[in-house]
Amino acid sequence: MSKVVNGMAIPNMPWEECPKGFDGPIWRYSKNPVIKRRPHKEISRAFNSAIVPFNGEFIGVFRGDNLDDIPHLYVGHSKDGVNIEIGEQIHFVDENDNPIADTMYQYDPRVIPLEGEYYIVWCDELCGPTIAIAKTKDFKKFVKFDNPFLPYNRNGVLFPRKVNDNYVMLSRPSDSGHTAFGDIFLSKSKDMVHWGEHRVVAQKGYEWWCALKIGAGPVPIELDDGWLLFIHGVNRTCNGYVYSIGGIILEKDDPSKVKARCKQFLLTPEMDYETTGFVPNVIFPTCALVDAPTGRIALYYGSADTYTSVAFTTVDRVVDYIMKNGR
Amino acid sequence: MSKVVNGMAIPNMPWEECPKGFDGPIWRYSKNPVIKRRPHKEISRAFNSAIVPFNGEFIGVFRGDNLDDIPHLYVGHSKDGVNIEIGEQIHFVDENDNPIADTMYQYDPRVIPLEGEYYIVWCDELCGPTIAIAKTKDFKKFVKFDNPFLPYNRNGVLFPRKVNDNYVMLSRPSDSGHTAFGDIFLSKSKDMVHWGEHRVVAQKGYEWWCALKIGAGPVPIELDDGWLLFIHGVNRTCNGYVYSIGGIILEKDDPSKVKARCKQFLLTPEMDYETTGFVPNVIFPTCALVDAPTGRIALYYGSADTYTSVAFTTVDRVVDYIMKNGR
Amino acid sequence: MSKVVNGMAIPNMPWEECPKGFDGPIWRYSKNPVIKRRPHKEISRAFNSAIVPFNGEFIGVFRGDNLDDIPHLYVGHSKDGVNIEIGEQIHFVDENDNPIADTMYQYDPRVIPLEGEYYIVWCDELCGPTIAIAKTKDFKKFVKFDNPFLPYNRNGVLFPRKVNDNYVMLSRPSDSGHTAFGDIFLSKSKDMVHWGEHRVVAQKGYEWWCALKIGAGPVPIELDDGWLLFIHGVNRTCNGYVYSIGGIILEKDDPSKVKARCKQFLLTPEMDYETTGFVPNVIFPTCALVDAPTGRIALYYGSADTYTSVAFTTVDRVVDYIMKNGR
Amino acid sequence: MSKVVNGMAIPNMPWEECPKGFDGPIWRYSKNPVIKRRPHKEISRAFNSAIVPFNGEFIGVFRGDNLDDIPHLYVGHSKDGVNIEIGEQIHFVDENDNPIADTMYQYDPRVIPLEGEYYIVWCDELCGPTIAIAKTKDFKKFVKFDNPFLPYNRNGVLFPRKVNDNYVMLSRPSDSGHTAFGDIFLSKSKDMVHWGEHRVVAQKGYEWWCALKIGAGPVPIELDDGWLLFIHGVNRTCNGYVYSIGGIILEKDDPSKVKARCKQFLLTPEMDYETTGFVPNVIFPTCALVDAPTGRIALYYGSADTYTSVAFTTVDRVVDYIMKNGR
Amino acid sequence: MSKVVNGMAIPNMPWEECPKGFDGPIWRYSKNPVIKRRPHKEISRAFNSAIVPFNGEFIGVFRGDNLDDIPHLYVGHSKDGVNIEIGEQIHFVDENDNPIADTMYQYDPRVIPLEGEYYIVWCDELCGPTIAIAKTKDFKKFVKFDNPFLPYNRNGVLFPRKVNDNYVMLSRPSDSGHTAFGDIFLSKSKDMVHWGEHRVVAQKGYEWWCALKIGAGPVPIELDDGWLLFIHGVNRTCNGYVYSIGGIILEKDDPSKVKARCKQFLLTPEMDYETTGFVPNVIFPTCALVDAPTGRIALYYGSADTYTSVAFTTVDRVVDYIMKNGR
Amino acid sequence: MSKVVNGMAIPNMPWEECPKGFDGPIWRYSKNPVIKRRPHKEISRAFNSAIVPFNGEFIGVFRGDNLDDIPHLYVGHSKDGVNIEIGEQIHFVDENDNPIADTMYQYDPRVIPLEGEYYIVWCDELCGPTIAIAKTKDFKKFVKFDNPFLPYNRNGVLFPRKVNDNYVMLSRPSDSGHTAFGDIFLSKSKDMVHWGEHRVVAQKGYEWWCALKIGAGPVPIELDDGWLLFIHGVNRTCNGYVYSIGGIILEKDDPSKVKARCKQFLLTPEMDYETTGFVPNVIFPTCALVDAPTGRIALYYGSADTYTSVAFTTVDRVVDYIMKNGR
Repeated sequence: MSKVVNGMAIPNMPWEECPKGFDGPIWRYSKNPVIKRRPHKEISRAFNSAIVPFNGEFIGVFRGDNLDDIPHLYVGHSKDGVNIEIGEQIHFVDENDNPIADTMYQYDPRVIPLEGEYYIVWCDELCGPTIAIAKTKDFKKFVKFDNPFLPYNRNGVLFPRKVNDNYVMLSRPSDSGHTAFGDIFLSKSKDMVHWGEHRVVAQKGYEWWCALKIGAGPVPIELDDGWLLFIHGVNRTCNGYVYSIGGIILEKDDPSKVKARCKQFLLTPEMDYETTGFVPNVIFPTCALVDAPTGRIALYYGSADTYTSVAFTTVDRVVDYIMKNGR
Repeated sequence: MSKVVNGMAIPNMPWEECPKGFDGPIWRYSKNPVIKRRPHKEISRAFNSAIVPFNGEFIGVFRGDNLDDIPHLYVGHSKDGVNIEIGEQIHFVDENDNPIADTMYQYDPRVIPLEGEYYIVWCDELCGPTIAIAKTKDFKKFVKFDNPFLPYNRNGVLFPRKVNDNYVMLSRPSDSGHTAFGDIFLSKSKDMVHWGEHRVVAQKGYEWWCALKIGAGPVPIELDDGWLLFIHGVNRTCNGYVYSIGGIILEKDDPSKVKARCKQFLLTPEMDYETTGFVPNVIFPTCALVDAPTGRIALYYGSADTYTSVAFTTVDRVVDYIMKNGR
Repeated sequence: MSKVVNGMAIPNMPWEECPKGFDGPIWRYSKNPVIKRRPHKEISRAFNSAIVPFNGEFIGVFRGDNLDDIPHLYVGHSKDGVNIEIGEQIHFVDENDNPIADTMYQYDPRVIPLEGEYYIVWCDELCGPTIAIAKTKDFKKFVKFDNPFLPYNRNGVLFPRKVNDNYVMLSRPSDSGHTAFGDIFLSKSKDMVHWGEHRVVAQKGYEWWCALKIGAGPVPIELDDGWLLFIHGVNRTCNGYVYSIGGIILEKDDPSKVKARCKQFLLTPEMDYETTGFVPNVIFPTCALVDAPTGRIALYYGSADTYTSVAFTTVDRVVDYIMKNGR
Repeated sequence: MSKVVNGMAIPNMPWEECPKGFDGPIWRYSKNPVIKRRPHKEISRAFNSAIVPFNGEFIGVFRGDNLDDIPHLYVGHSKDGVNIEIGEQIHFVDENDNPIADTMYQYDPRVIPLEGEYYIVWCDELCGPTIAIAKTKDFKKFVKFDNPFLPYNRNGVLFPRKVNDNYVMLSRPSDSGHTAFGDIFLSKSKDMVHWGEHRVVAQKGYEWWCALKIGAGPVPIELDDGWLLFIHGVNRTCNGYVYSIGGIILEKDDPSKVKARCKQFLLTPEMDYETTGFVPNVIFPTCALVDAPTGRIALYYGSADTYTSVAFTTVDRVVDYIMKNGR
Repeated sequence: MSKVVNGMAIPNMPWEECPKGFDGPIWRYSKNPVIKRRPHKEISRAFNSAIVPFNGEFIGVFRGDNLDDIPHLYVGHSKDGVNIEIGEQIHFVDENDNPIADTMYQYDPRVIPLEGEYYIVWCDELCGPTIAIAKTKDFKKFVKFDNPFLPYNRNGVLFPRKVNDNYVMLSRPSDSGHTAFGDIFLSKSKDMVHWGEHRVVAQKGYEWWCALKIGAGPVPIELDDGWLLFIHGVNRTCNGYVYSIGGIILEKDDPSKVKARCKQFLLTPEMDYETTGFVPNVIFPTCALVDAPTGRIALYYGSADTYTSVAFTTVDRVVDYIMKNGR
Repeated sequence: MSKVVNGMAIPNMPWEECPKGFDGPIWRYSKNPVIKRRPHKEISRAFNSAIVPFNGEFIGVFRGDNLDDIPHLYVGHSKDGVNIEIGEQIHFVDENDNPIADTMYQYDPRVIPLEGEYYIVWCDELCGPTIAIAKTKDFKKFVKFDNPFLPYNRNGVLFPRKVNDNYVMLSRPSDSGHTAFGDIFLSKSKDMVHWGEHRVVAQKGYEWWCALKIGAGPVPIELDDGWLLFIHGVNRTCNGYVYSIGGIILEKDDPSKVKARCKQFLLTPEMDYETTGFVPNVIFPTCALVDAPTGRIALYYGSADTYTSVAFTTVDRVVDYIMKNGR
């Protein structure tokens, strides 16, 4: 059995038991989607977002597509993790507290508790899409760093602690459009500004569900003997891209190495709120709440680039499934 | 407050009051769609169509996609504007009453009351798609003019009166396929046959909802201090085009100039009958009934290239929204 | 009136009478879809499949997309033709009963009763997609032949008897991707291994519903004066391909010649289980049960590359419709 | 034998007799190219240009690609038609002599003697490429008209007189890039500003040399019984477009109708200065000097988008060739 | 040392000794190209052609691109193999001597001496490009067979004798355009009409010179211990395709198996007549004359889709090079 | 007048005086190309390479496309800078002198004298093209660093000294193919391994010669008041990409800022060895020898991806030209 390490107890995290007779690795929340269209007066759709436990409740950073379809980042609060109130748009300051001019768009944030602060990693604009990093203590003031990578890059995900004395980032290099390729790379830094030691972690698969591209999902979950990483994988049909959720186990001390990779998707679009919407047939995981003592996981994912949805599993169940169906 | 000028009273036009608590610029008809699949024995889908008040009832020209998917134009009648009966296919004659051979396809008609007659403008075939014009008095005989423009062009919309002694047409130059670009141009004519003095009115925006292309919607609505023009705007996602509805105010005496342009969409596909169908995620406005004394507007739009739907607003509300959110 | 010849009586085949007032050529089963998502622990979606009467019940070969989205073939059983239990994956042997290594994927099978055995024809991998043939007596042992054609080819359909002393195959040559073209060809063989005398049967049409490509559907149904062939036709919209069902009558003694071709589709995606799913707006016919004495037809088709659905008609009704709307 | 009508005598036009034994329709000037690279301090390449007799010498309008590759129009002079001196860049004024702001680019000019003045027609920018018209008497002052057509259009060619009381223009509607389609259309105007009565003249052919697109070349040459029009035709190979020269005879009183069309090219890239350069394998005719009494023709064409070259023929010879090889 | 078997002596074949100091596998004829532009009044370019010894001289079948760029087949004669006179266009008859209607195009012929007759294999039109076969005894009457394969296919090459009692054909399945993929397949037949037992012989390589596609060249040369096959390989640059010549040794008794494959090209476009022309940077081998006693080879290849050129080598030299640089 | 600082005297560098009457910014070497085809038994084409003065002679790193078209790096020597002998292929070791496995390809090297050693920067493979760095003292042992950037990136160029205590690199982010976009970015590092503080330096221009993409050329030349950077710019024609050479002046203390940018190309393909070859119409500068006392520059550039060529100018002349034609 896998044990979550360096994690915290989140006894009040959202949870539903596995439905009777269900034998898959992940089950959906019965009240999905948890964020519906128009969750805020400025926002048309909120999805691909992330929350963390905060003062006994939950707080997070949300991708809010505005009424002009341009995505920006918003702070959101929740008492129970599923009834979510979206608040103010996030603007950034530099280290000296000077405001930084807003870029044109920001999307697909992850929130990473790291060294007592919260790091935000998302896709920002630097003359093309690339990764951005900021940190906050209070979800009021957000200090933005230099962009870690050159364009074109999407899906940045930071590890929740230094590994061998380095900050570690996963990302998916891309191009300037609706990129038709994508692999997961790992990069290291001492200072969160200068990045190097780039390594290929995993490439798109021969399995059709991830034959076009793959990318990292939520912050990796540290286990006693590895890192559990949810990913997205993309299949290209004659009517567009289908995004499913998969899983990988990385090596504990060198997470650029794959210990096990599940050949099958863990979840694929099947419900109306996943197959219909702004971009049909997309499920895109960006956040996992993990209750360390029990290994319970609440996986947050954008559905159809329109809604925020939740699914459940346990570390044991999903790691077991990955190992049994791994290559 | 904006005042409708040169308009008529349409006391019996379709109408529903704004739902309580709703604060957007436009609200949908609760019984949408008003035309469902298979509205006529020859027609698979009717949408992107236009009606006008006529003898105390309503009459119009409808795009009917036949059972081979090829679109033709049909006359349609309605007592109340929402229960619509589609009748005969339209064929055209020349000025001498001689029949004109049918072209392969006709689609996306607008109906323009102008100088005591009704003009029809639509996309027709001239060795590629281009705009066509015809006029009728009785919706029985339709006299077709020469095509105003060379291919390739779609979305022709005529102004409801001469401006500075010229007929005025909006259109969207395109190419021979599923055009990945599109701006709104204005052209002038003395005789409805020879057109020139072409001007750019508005181009696709940096806002993502209209970042691929924009085009004119229904006949412009004349206000005391400008022209209210609903438009469509297109966002390209990895799974296809999303068509939303936007709004622009043109200058009264020179409608090639934009007085205000709403940065946000006014309506975007959100309902099942908009996100699912022959072409998912398309809403495409082609007709606006306006009750001049009250400023009430019933906006007709095709949804999912499958249904005809209706939404409501008032001139004041929508103009106010465009001005407040304008650039 | 058309008479089915060389057919069998299937008194227990699935059937519903035509709904009152419905005047189209084909009507849907009221309990569609007959196979829903996750019909088997290894299978995410089962569709584009075929069954035959067998020992008073029904048996068939099913395309099952596995949990990695890769399709394989499965045996399936049913007592009534609509409640279907999917069983084991099919593996093949050669003529000497030696196992043949599995190829990467197999999809879109047809089952053809021929000379006292059952032939299976499907799309297999030979360094690219191409047609494969196997035969079985008992749906337990499947003897695979050499691939009849070079890549790239999809949609192989075998005639249910020799015509003029030749085995006859319909197919759709294609390319290595989501082929944007497709016509129906006929080829002949004496030995099921070496194929030649290739002829064009029918090409994509000017009618938009089949303007991109067409391909053969179920095994042709032999009539006294021709062969009834259901086909699929494809329309390309700005949001992807739309697959509809059409019909053709081939000449009795030279089925490379078209006697009548319906200009209109017989069925087009309209129901939720056809317009929404893994590949929206696809209906793809692959099997027809025909009760020879009555001419009743149960047409099986994949819907949205997700479900298996059934529709009904009679030989008289559909032949009559094809002839009346033919070119 | 064909007779040139409404033409002038140009006894001093460039000329070389047909080489002995040569039996093709057109022969090249032995000293080609007549304009080499860097013909002017601002110009990298001059090609696709046009001259006319003027005061006993020659004058014309030249496409000069500047040192930033952007093309502009220049006046050029020559005593003998082959030694050409390029002079000042052309800027335009409106009817009231007020300067008009330069657009970004201007290219592929034709010069048309018409009603005692010289009209210039070229491809200009109006939020995309479209046709522009100007006129001059002295090649010093150029008065620009409104653009005759909406974007996107290239290759405008004006007739040298009114036909049936209308100005007549040929053009090739296109898209915003390296257009992969192209047909010749004819349009009419009373005032050079408002254009209509658009007709298809000729479409791309099944012959491979013009299977991708065709467009008009120099000003049509009026014959006693028709109009001789040189055209360009384009073949698409795996290594790019190949532009050849072809010929068409239009009907005298209705030049939207084709009387004869040569199935074969008249000239195809074969010399080093045609197969090598900025755009290899392009020959593009834009000017024809015709000595009316003798029917001698000097055909000016751009070669490889780099040089200006000349070829010779006679009206009799080329018309005869077109008729004999016509369809 | 490799020995040619089942070959003939051709003492008068074209030949030049290897230039001093040259150490590559193949050297060019010093008087290339042997066929220049306009070799015949109907023909613009002749290339990708094949000759055989015949009555002490040489005769062959030539691809002649007509003056409309459409290719047809012509008979050609030569006394010495390099001064070639192109004669009449080839038309075909069926087995009963009835004329067969010409298809739209024919190209890239090979000539195969087989069982006392000469077989011609080329790319023909069957509703798209595919392989055709004919035979002749006298190069006057050509009897055409049914097309061996369905479209889309190019580069058919027949073996010069039955192997294990089967006729054997190599071909390259393709698509309907400028195919961006291509592998070599082998197929078998007893009757030259029905083909099967298709096998993959060799696929495009990781080496860049053949990374896009490969295809068979001239008729395979039978050695005592294998078959020597020249091939073409294609590299895609930002400015188009580059075709080079490579070499493979197939197994004697099962030529679907590769014994050795040269990692390097044997010849790549380097001379002006190879890098410049209708399609720059193409060399395409289609014929090899082999003097069996000495092993001398004259390799005929099209250059730049414009000229016919010749290069020389010996069986020993080229086999040795392939083996030393093989994988 | 601009003064070269931190440069060296290279009195024996290649040099030719400016031809009389020539008034452009750069003139070509009269004996170009200096490296022709097949310069080494393993190499088909050597181009896009760089040399430095070394022990009174010259040494450098050369891109050599092997006989399979795959490029690798080779050491090359020259006494005079134009007669160049290419030697051994370069393999790399790590800091501990352990061999590093060769990647599949290496191309477009620059050589940068920096802190007493020579750094090599080129495009290497890391699961896609990206930049690599190595250093050497003796051109015998090359120690490779970690890749500075994630894929996909080409055209890395290092500054010849630290600027404000940081190593500085220019590069051009791209995609996985023949990238149709490209801008110049600057990145900083303290340790040559971890890179950050990425800034946009210059983007593709509205000028057509660089409207598709731009990238850095040779190592920037330090002046008293700025950095002189030669660049490449790309124009896309219907027959492929055209690469020209341009120039930019960067700010001395913050070279991410552009002080002047020449609107015009400095050199464009015009000679046979530039317009014809493996990739026609490419000139690509990768090396500049500068004699500091006199400001003489010998600019090395690849031509047609086939040859190495040289052109000359002086710092004064080219800086003056950039300033006069700047924006």
